[in-house]
Amino acid sequence: MFSLADYTFMSHALQLAEKGLNTTSPNPRVGCVITCNDQIVGSGWHEKVGQAHAEINALVQAGDAARGATVYVTLEPCSHHGRTPPCADALIKAGVSRVVIAMEDPNPQVLGNGCAALKQAGVSVQTGLLSEQAQALNIGFINRMRSQRPWVRLKVAASLDGKTALNNGQSQWITGEAARIDGHRWRARSCGMMTGIGTILADNARLSVRHIFTSRQPKKIIIDNRLEIPFDALVLQGEQAFIFTTASADTGKITTLEKMGARVIVCKQSDQGRVDLNQMLATLADLEFNEIMVEAGSGLNGALMHAGLVDELIIYMAPSLLGGSAKDMLQLPELTCLDHKISLKIEDVRMVGRDIRLVARL
Amino acid sequence: MFSLADYTFMSHALQLAEKGLNTTSPNPRVGCVITCNDQIVGSGWHEKVGQAHAEINALVQAGDAARGATVYVTLEPCSHHGRTPPCADALIKAGVSRVVIAMEDPNPQVLGNGCAALKQAGVSVQTGLLSEQAQALNIGFINRMRSQRPWVRLKVAASLDGKTALNNGQSQWITGEAARIDGHRWRARSCGMMTGIGTILADNARLSVRHIFTSRQPKKIIIDNRLEIPFDALVLQGEQAFIFTTASADTGKITTLEKMGARVIVCKQSDQGRVDLNQMLATLADLEFNEIMVEAGSGLNGALMHAGLVDELIIYMAPSLLGGSAKDMLQLPELTCLDHKISLKIEDVRMVGRDIRLVARL
Repeated sequence: MFSLADYTFMSHALQLAEKGLNTTSPNPRVGCVITCNDQIVGSGWHEKVGQAHAEINALVQAGDAARGATVYVTLEPCSHHGRTPPCADALIKAGVSRVVIAMEDPNPQVLGNGCAALKQAGVSVQTGLLSEQAQALNIGFINRMRSQRPWVRLKVAASLDGKTALNNGQSQWITGEAARIDGHRWRARSCGMMTGIGTILADNARLSVRHIFTSRQPKKIIIDNRLEIPFDALVLQGEQAFIFTTASADTGKITTLEKMGARVIVCKQSDQGRVDLNQMLATLADLEFNEIMVEAGSGLNGALMHAGLVDELIIYMAPSLLGGSAKDMLQLPELTCLDHKISLKIEDVRMVGRDIRLVARL
Repeated sequence: MFSLADYTFMSHALQLAEKGLNTTSPNPRVGCVITCNDQIVGSGWHEKVGQAHAEINALVQAGDAARGATVYVTLEPCSHHGRTPPCADALIKAGVSRVVIAMEDPNPQVLGNGCAALKQAGVSVQTGLLSEQAQALNIGFINRMRSQRPWVRLKVAASLDGKTALNNGQSQWITGEAARIDGHRWRARSCGMMTGIGTILADNARLSVRHIFTSRQPKKIIIDNRLEIPFDALVLQGEQAFIFTTASADTGKITTLEKMGARVIVCKQSDQGRVDLNQMLATLADLEFNEIMVEAGSGLNGALMHAGLVDELIIYMAPSLLGGSAKDMLQLPELTCLDHKISLKIEDVRMVGRDIRLVARL
């Protein structure tokens, strides 16, 4: 169904899409290649929300050569007037004859309408080429569109025996520099960095991307049940912080924090008197967060995991041992039967410097 | 210094040596290839203590073709009358002209004497070809010869958060079948399987090789401070059990256990009133144990680790989470400073079935 040339050009489009990894949010990462007689006449990717979509950038480059051309695009062209006009119309207007699409747009405003519009205009449309790769690229966007939840990626740095800190709290530099830099790469692609108030109070965590270059910092998300955050917390500087709390009565502090630029969101309480995590994630989806990375203590880690709200676990494992009295990576209610353990699937294992990085999914 | 042919034939000799992986103990694994004009005229490996060494097996096969031939051998030929006559003499008598050796024999009874004897007889001798591979093959034998200690390999099966069992003790089948079979491969190459009395009492562990074929079972080593082992323990059946204890006064039980075929070794007490682990390992070296595999609870694991007596750590990590209240893989005295953590180096990481296996060295 697809030729070698089709695979080649779609791979190229996927690589172009990836250039927007850290910048397109809340939009998906999309790449586009336009060919005429198997020669590339135009290519482009989406860089930033509000700016041109991948197809438009490629069409501009192709100019008249787009007439009768084949278009490879990693996501179904949009059919609705969003922040920019519909790409399907632009492709039709340019007179392209064939459009190859890696995957349908899960956005309910598109969801097949882009394909339908193209077909109706007499354009040949094929879908599903390298769709797995295309889905991996927009795992957060897809999750938000399909499940009204961001993709939640929980990151832990631990010793080989699963410990994240000494009993006295010491935890700096368990893993090495390469792992730290790699961790910031995952931060850079995230829409938001999440932690609990405990980590803010203990480490004054900034949750920003520092060890690599990025033109866009992730937003900050703090679970702060009793609104204990100090006004001079570093996390309140830089990119906007979203504070989820149950302390609805603390209107004075809420007002001050919002004046400082933070956004305070009062949630209903869970049975344990804490922020309702399901409500929080639904709110974050409404706020257009695609991928969220959690770097928190064992309490919030365990609560998210126990509630089934973690999609992906990244563990950096240092080649060291801290012993049973050191701190665990996550607290769960005590299990009495192994059948009730949380099961995952390993997606990737590799060395990062002298540490091991493993990626597992729920 | 070495030709492509040299590398080829020594690689072959190393592969032959590996055929003795589960059977040569307490002898080293050795392979030998004899060539004439880069054609193999004889090859062999050492299979079992008391039987012919690799060189002799290869010489028998080569017959008269050994005259003027080149010999590739993975360990320096012996020069002393041990359980069999010296191989260096046999090579000289066969009239070989060149001997290529992967590594010197660390056995103080050889240690260069084999090379010297060959040279003195006019044979050209070269040493050091693929020596790293040759050392890896006999890591236990080398350790015993150089440090008077067996190579101690500690195996743990754990969840991603470093837990080996539930708080109530449930621990069966944390890792999958492929990991279990792989674990038995490591058991098969070991001279001895070590555990603590706790594991015997809790699981009635047999410590035998079951999931793969082996013609030789490892011996069993049990640390049993107060000599609590029941006479009907499965570990007392099959291959001989070595029980290390401090219960010197319990002469009646010692006599009965020895009548049953076990060997009871009374050790001096450590400061904590337990078997002195250094003395135990020195004794096991005297008893010609090369590689020992430890499968024990967090107490013995931690004690061996804390005493610096573990050489290699193998962790099978299942893609599951058990939570902070589950059991840790090793107990160490509480650390108050991260500088005092136990540091290792990752040697290998790979998937074994759906689990991760990592090998780390101290």
